[in-house]
Amino acid sequence: MKLIHYTCAAAKVFDDEQARGVTGRVLIGKLDGASHFCMRSFEIKPGGHTPRHAHAWEYEIFFHSGEAQVYINGELLSAGPGTALYVAPDEEHQIRNAGKETLIVVCLIPAGAPEL
Amino acid sequence: MKLIHYTCAAAKVFDDEQARGVTGRVLIGKLDGASHFCMRSFEIKPGGHTPRHAHAWEYEIFFHSGEAQVYINGELLSAGPGTALYVAPDEEHQIRNAGKETLIVVCLIPAGAPEL
Repeated sequence: MKLIHYTCAAAKVFDDEQARGVTGRVLIGKLDGASHFCMRSFEIKPGGHTPRHAHAWEYEIFFHSGEAQVYINGELLSAGPGTALYVAPDEEHQIRNAGKETLIVVCLIPAGAPEL
Repeated sequence: MKLIHYTCAAAKVFDDEQARGVTGRVLIGKLDGASHFCMRSFEIKPGGHTPRHAHAWEYEIFFHSGEAQVYINGELLSAGPGTALYVAPDEEHQIRNAGKETLIVVCLIPAGAPEL
């Protein structure tokens, strides 16, 4: 068992050309005994974004707060609190903060993919 | 790719002795091609609760909104928006709405476990 508020998990900051204004945290991972999948949170500042990339593992994302623009396979979509997004393996994707508040998302990946 | 607000997913209501005032939805599952794990949402009304039970697969839960009391292995814990909970296999657990608003949680399970 583990109970943790996302703000209490160790933070890793990404702030370069690829990922702008992003703080990532592992909430539940292999060190907790989670053998099938890993839960991370990402806080994305206004104007910030994740890298536009693709990889061999899927994402399952839940938008907790703030407003997002999602790029996926050439399409632009909007997402806000309560939206779920499935990104299949090898789909090119990026998440941008489209609002004035911090965007907070939860992102799950299969075990074996890099946790952060 | 799939993008869906949780309120747009098909709802299954649970309201008996075991689970009181609970609406469950599969947000991302095997029908979407998610082969490793499944994302569900649960809305729990004030006074409502999930069953007190244990099972052979783990849960990864994220508390989206509302206030919760978590029973796990004989302990009572509080959780609110932004809290993550890992329930290991065979740990007895229950989630209760401890507030006056609907409690909304996201709950992930490995592929192979019953989706809802």
